[in-house]
Amino acid sequence: MKLYTYFRSSAAYRVRIALNLKGVAYDAVPVHLLKDGGEQHGAAYRAVNPSELIPALETDGATLAQSLAIIEYLEEVHPVMPLLPQDALGRARVRALAQTIASDTHPLTNLRVLRHLKGTLGLSEDDKNAWYRHWLGEGMRVLEAQLASSPATGRFCHGDMPTIADCCLVPQVFNARRVGIDLAPFPTITAIDAACAGIPAFQAAHPSQQPDAE
Amino acid sequence: MKLYTYFRSSAAYRVRIALNLKGVAYDAVPVHLLKDGGEQHGAAYRAVNPSELIPALETDGATLAQSLAIIEYLEEVHPVMPLLPQDALGRARVRALAQTIASDTHPLTNLRVLRHLKGTLGLSEDDKNAWYRHWLGEGMRVLEAQLASSPATGRFCHGDMPTIADCCLVPQVFNARRVGIDLAPFPTITAIDAACAGIPAFQAAHPSQQPDAE
Repeated sequence: MKLYTYFRSSAAYRVRIALNLKGVAYDAVPVHLLKDGGEQHGAAYRAVNPSELIPALETDGATLAQSLAIIEYLEEVHPVMPLLPQDALGRARVRALAQTIASDTHPLTNLRVLRHLKGTLGLSEDDKNAWYRHWLGEGMRVLEAQLASSPATGRFCHGDMPTIADCCLVPQVFNARRVGIDLAPFPTITAIDAACAGIPAFQAAHPSQQPDAE
Repeated sequence: MKLYTYFRSSAAYRVRIALNLKGVAYDAVPVHLLKDGGEQHGAAYRAVNPSELIPALETDGATLAQSLAIIEYLEEVHPVMPLLPQDALGRARVRALAQTIASDTHPLTNLRVLRHLKGTLGLSEDDKNAWYRHWLGEGMRVLEAQLASSPATGRFCHGDMPTIADCCLVPQVFNARRVGIDLAPFPTITAIDAACAGIPAFQAAHPSQQPDAE
């Protein structure tokens, strides 16, 4: 199993957490998103994944794209350490929390969008950073409201075992810290992040622990 | 079952298709995204869905958010007319196609982002439209590459039965047509869109057929 990854990519970070939680071994193939305009745009990686986005997972004779699709696949073929609850309503809640991050927040703040804002639209560094902080902050606000208002929230996003939602939350909080977002308005999120930080599977997936970390 | 919807919302359109394909009856509760700055931002809808995004589905005593999480829920509780293939690799492929649209494309071109580009960043109408066309076009390019390169693509995105991927593709093509994107470079997408257009479940979900259509 080969994971095309970049140490600081949120989406790759999610999949690394899921692989580690399930105890599935993999070979990391680093794709440098910044070097020479981005290795993800080169012919070699484009042949792996035409979206030119990280991550991709080579397994069982296929190449899988999209972090949440990859994690759902891992959930189906490696059901040990389930990352979704047993009940359909619980699964819907976990998937919605994950998508609040993966669909509503992260796509607006990823590298290709930030490059487009500066390169094509000519935004200043300040305006680009304001954009990043606006959408990341909006995503955190919604996530905090969803988590704080529900009795289903426990030590983790859903009860007392990590789920796909936690695989998404932790990389999002990592990004928020990196750009200096004040986390005080998000006590539920930070408590869950702290609970995850105590688990070896999350620790080993951290950007600083990757072979391509800088 | 109550679906909070807006006739032209891509994400609501996806869920309407899924409900219709499965033959699940629902009451449509229109939320006008443009009137008075957007009913989705009012206290009433915010109590339903703190993300202030459409759609939400009230069912089985819960309120579900996020179009793909809602469709996965429908798939689990109404397995008739399955919207995912039987095999795990096939399901991963369908989910990845759906997320190419729902995570990589649509979040960049939805109403709140277009408003932010004009209102907060002060972009001209032309620059805003160029943004829309850029990201929609990029999403279509990737989707076409994924579909055209795979023997798994059939009359629909995956084989000869509609799946979650088709629930996402059709609203995306509707948007592309609305802004006048040239569809000639996307023959696989347009052939699938045409196949879907022949199916009553897709027809009934079309924006023009909704109670709040203008």
